[in-house]
Amino acid sequence: MSKDNQVSITVIRRLPIYYRYLGDLLKKGINRISSKELSNLIGFTASQIRQDLNNFGGFGQQGYGYNVEELHNEIGKILGLDSEYKVVVTGAGNLGHAVNSYRGFRDAGFNIIGVFDKNPDNPRHAMRNMEVRDFDELENFLSENKIDIGIITTPKDYAQETADIYIRNGIKAIWNFATIDLVVPEDVVLESVRLSESLFTLSYYLKNKENE
Amino acid sequence: MSKDNQVSITVIRRLPIYYRYLGDLLKKGINRISSKELSNLIGFTASQIRQDLNNFGGFGQQGYGYNVEELHNEIGKILGLDSEYKVVVTGAGNLGHAVNSYRGFRDAGFNIIGVFDKNPDNPRHAMRNMEVRDFDELENFLSENKIDIGIITTPKDYAQETADIYIRNGIKAIWNFATIDLVVPEDVVLESVRLSESLFTLSYYLKNKENE
Repeated sequence: MSKDNQVSITVIRRLPIYYRYLGDLLKKGINRISSKELSNLIGFTASQIRQDLNNFGGFGQQGYGYNVEELHNEIGKILGLDSEYKVVVTGAGNLGHAVNSYRGFRDAGFNIIGVFDKNPDNPRHAMRNMEVRDFDELENFLSENKIDIGIITTPKDYAQETADIYIRNGIKAIWNFATIDLVVPEDVVLESVRLSESLFTLSYYLKNKENE
Repeated sequence: MSKDNQVSITVIRRLPIYYRYLGDLLKKGINRISSKELSNLIGFTASQIRQDLNNFGGFGQQGYGYNVEELHNEIGKILGLDSEYKVVVTGAGNLGHAVNSYRGFRDAGFNIIGVFDKNPDNPRHAMRNMEVRDFDELENFLSENKIDIGIITTPKDYAQETADIYIRNGIKAIWNFATIDLVVPEDVVLESVRLSESLFTLSYYLKNKENE
């Protein structure tokens, strides 16, 4: 599915950042915040923040600012975090483990109900809380369970094959950690995590420090 | 260190993307590409690509386009990938393993020379290729080795403590995977990986599909 309908992806990617900061404010018991205070906290300009949020509704009031809880909940809904999602993971190596054991995903409604691997009996693949099934069982599992999100934490050589199985069995959203560009049809949402891009951004700034 | 000197961070974050696509083109033996062709490949507008690259020099020629190898190398230099970096990792759980075993980082010059954990003898923490040292030894190790980048793959409760040790022992760049905002001085570069932000972007698009 094309990510450039309606609200631009650059704005969409800022929403989870707002969500995170608002969640922290809530935990601290702060109920009200202005776009200027949010700006000081987050680093985006106050006008960027207001513009971003205006895409989604009339949050905030002149002279009052935003109600933190309300805004946090509304952004949560916009991000689809008020729903429960059934998720499978293929690839039970380090990244598969990391994703499977991250409690924040479960708390946000992402329920991993199946983990698959080409080598399910490898002791390093064993998960504390869940059986690791053989990759051969994936297609069958998908025919018996309506899965919303398929996660790919396989080596890159198996990523497209995994994606293909996901796609032909009705999965409409794929979260890909493999370092390869996947081919997916228009009606499937693909989000790829590129850790090297993050690390290379770091080395850019480190190098530029040295040149100061 | 502030990330808003000179070239904007939004441009910087696109550089690794160009680097990746150009690397793929090189592998396919493609030597020459226009900004229009790059645009079709990557999805950024041709004018955005030209503008981005113009920040760094006169690459490309009217009517010719870009020389793929040259541009790939130049962007690699800009990203600091022509250097070798000494790296430590603190936190030998799933993410620590994932980061330590990712060959792409080593190939790009990032050499992990020490891995630390509060529970180094946990069999699940053992690394195939490297001893996991006790967290208590970190400070000493840093005094004996000039480390460029400190990676944090600890639970969030230990992240700031780890960052503090890194900082007071001269580390100037931190790559943080813990789900917490770290406090670092102005002269330290901090890059935080936010996996939940990626996943929540996915759920936004999945939700919006349902509403079509």
